[in-house]
Amino acid sequence: MAAKARIGILGASGYTGSELVRLLLAHPRVEIALLTADRKAGQEMRDVYPQFAPYALPKLVAIDGIDWAGLKLDLVFCALPHGTTQTVIKHLLANAPETKVVDLSADFRLTEPAAYARWYGHAHQAVELQQEAVYGLVEVYRREIKKARLVANPGCYTTCAQLPLVPLLKAKAIEPDEIVIDAKSGMTGAGRAAKENMLFSEVSEGFHAYGVGHHRHMAELDQEFSKAAGRDVLVSFTPHLLPMNRGILSTIYVRGRRGRTAEDLHVLLEKAYAKEPFVHVLPFGQTPQTRHVRGSNMTFIGLAKDRVPGRAIIVSALDNLVKGASGQAVQNMNLLLGYAETMGLEQVALFP
Amino acid sequence: MAAKARIGILGASGYTGSELVRLLLAHPRVEIALLTADRKAGQEMRDVYPQFAPYALPKLVAIDGIDWAGLKLDLVFCALPHGTTQTVIKHLLANAPETKVVDLSADFRLTEPAAYARWYGHAHQAVELQQEAVYGLVEVYRREIKKARLVANPGCYTTCAQLPLVPLLKAKAIEPDEIVIDAKSGMTGAGRAAKENMLFSEVSEGFHAYGVGHHRHMAELDQEFSKAAGRDVLVSFTPHLLPMNRGILSTIYVRGRRGRTAEDLHVLLEKAYAKEPFVHVLPFGQTPQTRHVRGSNMTFIGLAKDRVPGRAIIVSALDNLVKGASGQAVQNMNLLLGYAETMGLEQVALFP
Amino acid sequence: MAAKARIGILGASGYTGSELVRLLLAHPRVEIALLTADRKAGQEMRDVYPQFAPYALPKLVAIDGIDWAGLKLDLVFCALPHGTTQTVIKHLLANAPETKVVDLSADFRLTEPAAYARWYGHAHQAVELQQEAVYGLVEVYRREIKKARLVANPGCYTTCAQLPLVPLLKAKAIEPDEIVIDAKSGMTGAGRAAKENMLFSEVSEGFHAYGVGHHRHMAELDQEFSKAAGRDVLVSFTPHLLPMNRGILSTIYVRGRRGRTAEDLHVLLEKAYAKEPFVHVLPFGQTPQTRHVRGSNMTFIGLAKDRVPGRAIIVSALDNLVKGASGQAVQNMNLLLGYAETMGLEQVALFP
Amino acid sequence: MAAKARIGILGASGYTGSELVRLLLAHPRVEIALLTADRKAGQEMRDVYPQFAPYALPKLVAIDGIDWAGLKLDLVFCALPHGTTQTVIKHLLANAPETKVVDLSADFRLTEPAAYARWYGHAHQAVELQQEAVYGLVEVYRREIKKARLVANPGCYTTCAQLPLVPLLKAKAIEPDEIVIDAKSGMTGAGRAAKENMLFSEVSEGFHAYGVGHHRHMAELDQEFSKAAGRDVLVSFTPHLLPMNRGILSTIYVRGRRGRTAEDLHVLLEKAYAKEPFVHVLPFGQTPQTRHVRGSNMTFIGLAKDRVPGRAIIVSALDNLVKGASGQAVQNMNLLLGYAETMGLEQVALFP
Repeated sequence: MAAKARIGILGASGYTGSELVRLLLAHPRVEIALLTADRKAGQEMRDVYPQFAPYALPKLVAIDGIDWAGLKLDLVFCALPHGTTQTVIKHLLANAPETKVVDLSADFRLTEPAAYARWYGHAHQAVELQQEAVYGLVEVYRREIKKARLVANPGCYTTCAQLPLVPLLKAKAIEPDEIVIDAKSGMTGAGRAAKENMLFSEVSEGFHAYGVGHHRHMAELDQEFSKAAGRDVLVSFTPHLLPMNRGILSTIYVRGRRGRTAEDLHVLLEKAYAKEPFVHVLPFGQTPQTRHVRGSNMTFIGLAKDRVPGRAIIVSALDNLVKGASGQAVQNMNLLLGYAETMGLEQVALFP
Repeated sequence: MAAKARIGILGASGYTGSELVRLLLAHPRVEIALLTADRKAGQEMRDVYPQFAPYALPKLVAIDGIDWAGLKLDLVFCALPHGTTQTVIKHLLANAPETKVVDLSADFRLTEPAAYARWYGHAHQAVELQQEAVYGLVEVYRREIKKARLVANPGCYTTCAQLPLVPLLKAKAIEPDEIVIDAKSGMTGAGRAAKENMLFSEVSEGFHAYGVGHHRHMAELDQEFSKAAGRDVLVSFTPHLLPMNRGILSTIYVRGRRGRTAEDLHVLLEKAYAKEPFVHVLPFGQTPQTRHVRGSNMTFIGLAKDRVPGRAIIVSALDNLVKGASGQAVQNMNLLLGYAETMGLEQVALFP
Repeated sequence: MAAKARIGILGASGYTGSELVRLLLAHPRVEIALLTADRKAGQEMRDVYPQFAPYALPKLVAIDGIDWAGLKLDLVFCALPHGTTQTVIKHLLANAPETKVVDLSADFRLTEPAAYARWYGHAHQAVELQQEAVYGLVEVYRREIKKARLVANPGCYTTCAQLPLVPLLKAKAIEPDEIVIDAKSGMTGAGRAAKENMLFSEVSEGFHAYGVGHHRHMAELDQEFSKAAGRDVLVSFTPHLLPMNRGILSTIYVRGRRGRTAEDLHVLLEKAYAKEPFVHVLPFGQTPQTRHVRGSNMTFIGLAKDRVPGRAIIVSALDNLVKGASGQAVQNMNLLLGYAETMGLEQVALFP
Repeated sequence: MAAKARIGILGASGYTGSELVRLLLAHPRVEIALLTADRKAGQEMRDVYPQFAPYALPKLVAIDGIDWAGLKLDLVFCALPHGTTQTVIKHLLANAPETKVVDLSADFRLTEPAAYARWYGHAHQAVELQQEAVYGLVEVYRREIKKARLVANPGCYTTCAQLPLVPLLKAKAIEPDEIVIDAKSGMTGAGRAAKENMLFSEVSEGFHAYGVGHHRHMAELDQEFSKAAGRDVLVSFTPHLLPMNRGILSTIYVRGRRGRTAEDLHVLLEKAYAKEPFVHVLPFGQTPQTRHVRGSNMTFIGLAKDRVPGRAIIVSALDNLVKGASGQAVQNMNLLLGYAETMGLEQVALFP
């Protein structure tokens, strides 16, 4: 039997952390060697997530005392809040420079120090690593990821918007100034922090937009869309919260350029993703549902003709905790460790 | 005590029918004298909706044998499927021409026979009544409704989109060719028909768009928006289904005309609705949640600046069964019968 | 127009507080003169509960500086956490002894100081008031309540269990030592405190029991069941949390005494509640659903024969925030102020 | 690579059918060779369940024309409605006697022809096979299953009740005449038939009991409990429907015999399941939640002391579509085909 890579998960008590555990327990070539959770240090993972009670897992520890060099981890997933992340990873890589890192926070997604400072209100604390980091949208940066040490795993909203739009912008097939992205996310995207507005009784049987006009995820979209289009792109983007746990669905309104019809755009998407294991383009006119990707690493994309001449409506759907976070992180891990890209990610969606 | 008007409800076993019963049981000036439900004729209302068990209500009867003249109803709510509605109302008014009618179907919403034929695929069966009918969006047509005999109660999606957009289009304050309406509805909007895709297990924990590019509600929007703007208006409109029962939220993307800023648009909406009892405009930058209008006849409207220069994002929310259907129908009834417009509609939203 | 009573609500930012506001806004004979919320003092009610934005309400204030004598309130609802409640009410009644109080906490439900100390781990801080307080289960103590100054509003679980069981125990019709109460509650019963285990993502799509074998509500059941039976009664009681907001359903397993059949027990319940406006006994063999009492002050009770000889299964359902808390509190208020008992409580259940 | 067994699934368009497909797609030693769905014959599985769009699967066919002998299936899962099942399997085994069958219907669970006739109202149509069939509760009948040809997969409610109770009854540790089982199931347990009372709007935000006093699953419980206890056992059993998709939780009230304490009962359960891969007994006093077994083949069992002397409360939880149906069916398949019992069933629960 092939050797197993030794893996650490920083921030194992959050939802992306527990999702990493779920996926890695089914991965044949890894061994979970470290789980951290500062506020829950000393507890067993089963105390924090009872679903893991039947499995043997390391006890949760605090980050502070960790001997990074001694642990000899092959790869670390970092699922910590943004801000603290950059300091932790800087320290980790200073002490264990051979360790590979997949970071699920926003800390290394923006490549420009100035853009980071503008959106986050302070200078980046690890600018050299910021320069080194590779943006981990596998379908776009697969080649660069394979050679990387530090991968910045994309956000959930932005993955769902980029997968349909990047190929169209690269092909200059849509008008970059008329893109509207209306995005809806399940509640797990908001994390596990105990806040009044996230209580069941506040959330169930209701729906609302938030951050209207000024959501931070736009920084990442601006960067990647501008890169794809070869010019500045500024999109309208509105996030909403759904009374359900998992799933993001983005409804995207675009106008074809130079006579491109909706059918033309669909052909472009089909070609772009013909060989991708985790992106499935539906037949023309069909649109996807979040429930059919729940728990899987799959993204479903549909495109239909708008009745407004020249316009098309794209709908993309993924599970925000899998392809939108931990599944994509494992996909990145597979590339970094030289494994088959789909290893451990074959689970079919759980529906109903 | 003032005399009570005698009311009939056709199609009492559907959700808009039961919602009418709920509202009318709390209305001090009406008496429910007739309830029809063809497939459930002979049953008690409590068999079909157990919440009415403690109340005295007429037994459900079939429409066919009704003696319209003899019943001497003051007003009839018609909550039947579109298509059959026009024949039923034609017959009713032929036999009881003094009776007032509020129709909740789509049958009398389009004023042009040609538009009706194009969208529904057949000629209208009661063209004279189609001409007579008044479109029942109270905030726009209050004066006409007061004098009407037959009112076409607006659709739920269209009420939610028209309330914020009609004043802006009338004021020529927004660009009519760049309107995108992304609408999300609770499941009660889909009715009570037993269909596989409406089962709990199919719907819960998921979200999807439907009718992408070609939803019938657009006919009503085209008509009313074009009338308001004084020119043809064609909007992008995508409906979605939420895993919850009640509530519609529309996220609407607009561009100001002739230098109108988001703040200008907000002032216009505030002025338009300053005295309306059932439309509440939130402070600039705040946006509403469906849960805060659940069970009430209220519409909440918010408007925020988009980061894309010159653009604004409007969010409107209402309960599809109340202001989007039966509540607005009672509001119309109050106008038709000369009652205070808010009578029986004072219930505060049920949250949580 | 008759004068309106001046009402105060202590703890208006919790769910029972907001539910009192919802009900009182529709009550023709009261005026909300005081709203307190210590942590949210200074805010408008609309900031805490946006559904109240269209209504004029007093600003939220802290309890500490209140001039109870000067306010001249006719009645105060106290919706504070247990423990602090007894001190607040003692102070209030010392300064405004004419004011009537309906307390929604558990502080005055136990009549025995010793029982209170045993269940709550400390001596009661207002023993005289504890003696004075009347237990506010209207259907059982209506006469006493009318003459009271301080009413201890019953708990939601206990109301749902007492309404079907008290008449049967009083009639000595069931075996007191073989009662099993399996109770399920919607999440609003757990309040609005921001706790991790009450987050939407933790609660949705799941179900569990809690406090198995040792829930505090049992104290109240012990007291009232023993009083009804004329001997000590100790029941098995297990509460569970449902992934929904409102509603308690109790499934109760009993054995008839001295040959009483299930049919006999049903007749007893029908007789006990024949004239009660807020308790509806279903036909023999039918059992209720929580959705059909949502938002209303109604309790539905059903009783069916068990296949185990001599046993019956009772199912009772109510809305925990209405008949289980604020609706019953308003019902008590009506008695205390000499109003019709059903005033302001006529709302029909909101279904679907 | 080892050869793959050829598998057929009859009734693939229902929820247990699609769940079998989900599990078998992740099983390394099987190949799905046949999918039937009479009303959807001719469609692709992706049309019926879009989550399977990325996978190659045989087209759905009708049962009638199948050449059982020619297909050379190693094993068939039968997920058809009860009643028709017995005829289909009789025909299948007559033509392909070497094929093994795991039947998920109720048709072969009762071993007594008389019991079958009494509960189902007609004589069994395949009495010989009824005699041959082995009851497929693996933890109890593992040895018999390994040698069987036809396995009757247990029901979901009954699996959830038997796993905790059978060891206690066998040990004569609890009083057989005082067992109360209060069971709650997610909606997928009710299947995919389009019925009004299963619509989302009817089910969400509500809870109810059904079949009170006379549910058919009791036949299976009577048979197995009586066998375990060595005498007739008749339990009180009430099923309820939860507003969620997956999960059964049974709250079970028992009394220890001959001085057995709750702690004694817990020790018995721990011993019984110490080596079982799919049954996990929680520490004494802890009780499980359905969400922590969702999507997995795991059963969690907890036991706590009741405050009523001599009594204990047991709570067991499983996913009705996995351990309660298709997962247990795959577990049976593994035994029948000589594979490792856990093969393909290692998925960790999906939470949140």
